[in-house]
Amino acid sequence: MAEKKKLILLTNDDGITAPGLVAMYRHLTEISDVHVVAPETVQSATGHGITLSQPLLTSRVEVENAFVGTAVAGSPADCVKLAISQLLPRQPDLVISGINSGANVGINVIYSGTVAAAIEAAFLGRPAIALSLYLKRDVPPDYARTATYARRVIEQIVAAGLRGGQVASVNIPSLRANEEPTGVKVLRQCTRPWADTYERRKDPRGRDYFWNSSVFTLSTDEADTDVAALKEDYITITPLQFDLTEHGVLREWAGKKWGV
Amino acid sequence: MAEKKKLILLTNDDGITAPGLVAMYRHLTEISDVHVVAPETVQSATGHGITLSQPLLTSRVEVENAFVGTAVAGSPADCVKLAISQLLPRQPDLVISGINSGANVGINVIYSGTVAAAIEAAFLGRPAIALSLYLKRDVPPDYARTATYARRVIEQIVAAGLRGGQVASVNIPSLRANEEPTGVKVLRQCTRPWADTYERRKDPRGRDYFWNSSVFTLSTDEADTDVAALKEDYITITPLQFDLTEHGVLREWAGKKWGV
Repeated sequence: MAEKKKLILLTNDDGITAPGLVAMYRHLTEISDVHVVAPETVQSATGHGITLSQPLLTSRVEVENAFVGTAVAGSPADCVKLAISQLLPRQPDLVISGINSGANVGINVIYSGTVAAAIEAAFLGRPAIALSLYLKRDVPPDYARTATYARRVIEQIVAAGLRGGQVASVNIPSLRANEEPTGVKVLRQCTRPWADTYERRKDPRGRDYFWNSSVFTLSTDEADTDVAALKEDYITITPLQFDLTEHGVLREWAGKKWGV
Repeated sequence: MAEKKKLILLTNDDGITAPGLVAMYRHLTEISDVHVVAPETVQSATGHGITLSQPLLTSRVEVENAFVGTAVAGSPADCVKLAISQLLPRQPDLVISGINSGANVGINVIYSGTVAAAIEAAFLGRPAIALSLYLKRDVPPDYARTATYARRVIEQIVAAGLRGGQVASVNIPSLRANEEPTGVKVLRQCTRPWADTYERRKDPRGRDYFWNSSVFTLSTDEADTDVAALKEDYITITPLQFDLTEHGVLREWAGKKWGV
C-alpha cells in the first residue's frame, strides 16, 4: 500500500492570486498534496488580526494553470483557523505562508500577516514556515527562482526536525541573474526599532491626515541578526515562538510584594 | 522651580469614547499630564496591524466631562506611532493602553490590539502598560472601580522600575460589589491553544460563509499562568517582550550545515 501523501496548507498575506504563492505552489505539489486557503485581497501589515464580529465569506478561486483554492474575505490568521478547523480533509503536516512580496525581518516580524499565519498554525499545533522575498528597488522580483531556493530550505528545515508548534521564518534576497545567495544562515530577529516618518497633509475639506512615509532599510549594525545577513544577500532562517513573556522581568517582579 | 509634570499617552483598541479609557483618564490626570490618541472606531482583535498604504485621518474629539483627544482612523499601533512621532509635545514618560473591555491573557495576547499598542510603544523605547478587564457574563463591568485598581497597580509597576522598551500587561477581574480581588500576582502568559469553532452558513445568494463561534473560557489547568490566576479573581501582571526568536532552536539549528 502506498504511503499516504503529506498534506500542506499553503496561505499568504498578499492574496490568493499573488505570484509568490503561485510560484511556491508549483514546487510544493511535487512533494505533497497542497491545499490553498488564502485571503481574497491583499492583507499586508495586518499583523495577527482575526475576524470575530463579522462573517468570513469564502469563494472557490481558480488560478489559471495552477490550482483551485479557497479565498477567504479575512486575514491570514483567519485563513489558517478556518482551513484547519473547517476546510481541510485532515490536519496538515505542514503549513507554508508566502512567498511574501517583501522582507519580514527585524521588528517587522510583528506587523507581518505572513508570519502571523505561520504563528497561528503553530498555536494550533502544526509545524509552520513563513517565506518572504526581500525586494530591492533595482532588481525585478523572480518568484520562480525564489521558490526554488525556498523549497530547498523547506526540505532542510523539515529534515532538521521542525515539530508541531514550531515556526521558522525564511527570508530570501532578490538577486540578479548572475548573482547567487551568499549562503544560508540561522539568526535571531533584530529587535532594533526603526524611526517612523509621516507626511502631514490636509484633505479637500481641511481635515488633517497623515501618511506613513517611513522607508524600511536594512542595516548591517548587528551582524548576528536576520536584518544584517539579509542585507548581505544571505538567505536567513529565524526560528520563532509565541510566548511573549519577558521571563527575566517575571522572575524579578515575582519576588516583590504586590497588592491593591 | 517646579518639576516638569510627567506625560502619559493614553490609547486603547475599543475606540476613543470607550468607558474603560474614560475611566482610566480620570485617574491618570491626577498623577500626570495625559494626552489621548486613540482609534476612532472599535479595533478589537486587530492584532499588531499598521496602516501603510492608506492615509490616517485624524480628528479632535471631545468626550463630555472628560477630555479632548485625537481620534485616528486606524489601528491601536497606528495611534502610538502617530502620537509619538507627530502629535505629542514631547516623548511620553509612560504609555497606557486600555482599559480594554475583555481579558487579554493566554494566546489572546497575540491577537490583542490593546497589547499591540503597548508593544509598539516599547518598540519606540517607551515604558508601556496594557490594561484589560476580564468580563463575566453575570457581572456588570465597573470601569470606575477597575480604574482604581489599575492605578494602584500602575504605580507599583512604575515603582518596580519599568524601563523604556518594557511592557507590562495587567488583567483585572470583574467583581461584584461585595467581592475583592483575591490578590495580585506576576505570572507568565499561558500559551495553550484554544479550539476554534465556526458555524457554516449560506448567504442569501447561496455563497458559503463562516462565523467564528468560539467561546473563550479561562481554564485553571496551568496554575502558574495568567489564565488560571485571572479565573481565580487575581489581578494578573505579565511582563511582555517582542523578541519572537526561539533561542533554543536557534542554538540547535545554528550548528547545522545549510545551503541551497
